[in-house]
Amino acid sequence: MATSEVKLLGTWSCPYVNRAQLALKLKSVEYEFVEDIPYKKSEILLKYNPVHKKIPVLVHDEKPVCESLIIVQYIDDAWPASPSFFPSDAYDRAQSRFWADYIDTKWYPLLKVLRQSEEKEERTTLIEKVSEGLLLLEEVFIKCSKGKPYFGGENIGCLDIVLGSTLRWLEVTGMVLEIELLDLDKTPKLARWARSFCSDDVVEDVLPETQKLLELNRKIQDFIKAGSKWN
Amino acid sequence: MATSEVKLLGTWSCPYVNRAQLALKLKSVEYEFVEDIPYKKSEILLKYNPVHKKIPVLVHDEKPVCESLIIVQYIDDAWPASPSFFPSDAYDRAQSRFWADYIDTKWYPLLKVLRQSEEKEERTTLIEKVSEGLLLLEEVFIKCSKGKPYFGGENIGCLDIVLGSTLRWLEVTGMVLEIELLDLDKTPKLARWARSFCSDDVVEDVLPETQKLLELNRKIQDFIKAGSKWN
Repeated sequence: MATSEVKLLGTWSCPYVNRAQLALKLKSVEYEFVEDIPYKKSEILLKYNPVHKKIPVLVHDEKPVCESLIIVQYIDDAWPASPSFFPSDAYDRAQSRFWADYIDTKWYPLLKVLRQSEEKEERTTLIEKVSEGLLLLEEVFIKCSKGKPYFGGENIGCLDIVLGSTLRWLEVTGMVLEIELLDLDKTPKLARWARSFCSDDVVEDVLPETQKLLELNRKIQDFIKAGSKWN
Repeated sequence: MATSEVKLLGTWSCPYVNRAQLALKLKSVEYEFVEDIPYKKSEILLKYNPVHKKIPVLVHDEKPVCESLIIVQYIDDAWPASPSFFPSDAYDRAQSRFWADYIDTKWYPLLKVLRQSEEKEERTTLIEKVSEGLLLLEEVFIKCSKGKPYFGGENIGCLDIVLGSTLRWLEVTGMVLEIELLDLDKTPKLARWARSFCSDDVVEDVLPETQKLLELNRKIQDFIKAGSKWN
């Protein structure tokens, strides 16, 4: 097979970008990382993602693929040699897609709002909702993993990538609020999964350092307090 | 293979439900249609879709699948005998997913707001945006269909189902506003595709009658004017 050119447009701190990085590295695909600052709409971004104007964008032999879940699925389809990110059973596959969508449209947006929330009452409600989501995801983990270490069973799968990419931001949010969001007592299996996921070599290599994220988060908060819109 | 029990929870007028109906009928899957009124959260709905509490829900041998795009993909995976709804090429498949997501998250929501909009200036802006979306989808049709009758090529595929399920509501919106939204001059290929899609036997059988939808739309408008929230 001729060597193909793979570029990834993104920034190191974005969990959606981290998903694409994880998927590429897990499939041992060589790629060039093109740092693209999210709040500046660069020319290359507008060229490759004129519809959403958002990172990540995967560019494979000059052809762009956008939206992180679609990118993960594409990487799985285009490089089928290593274990698939999706279960082989049709129903299990549908469940994977459902929970990936739940994390993207329901759970992670709550965590994002929580991170930026300053108001005490709102914070309490959001902490409850984020924790309820984690309780639900504990159940999902039990169902999907079937006693194996990952949502994907023996190997890291789509749901591991999707939820796993948010773990550092979950940690940072907990540090800012001075609480343990992923609680070993309330969600023991999920907490253990998170620890083992983060200690995987590929994952360790991709996920941003917590301290660096914490600093970035401080900058974002200052930026927002000064009345600007981040991203 | 043992006969499996397939139920679909939904209502006749909902384009997301129509997608699941189209997918099932195109695959010649026998199913029971369980009418579920969208603004009442029935017990059966809460049982099968406790996360989103929304129709459609496909129940296959007591196992629920939710979210219309995930349902269409599931039907394609679970009944693989007839032609697939997705292209065989990985990149084309990613493009199908991208545009299905665009229709769901960008274009169709605009059409929904337009249908309920009463304010003249807002209407003008929305008509422009909906039409811009259709121009974009004309380009997508040219790329995907490659000279064949459907987005899916020779056969009705995922994008035909996703966009096609909105065609009657597009027509009704045009009738209410007294304009032609799908214009034969501006988007000739898309307009011709719509005509040929709607005259397919399976499609004709599933899509709601325009007059019935028009009446329903009038009722919804009266309901909203009376200060109630329609789903």
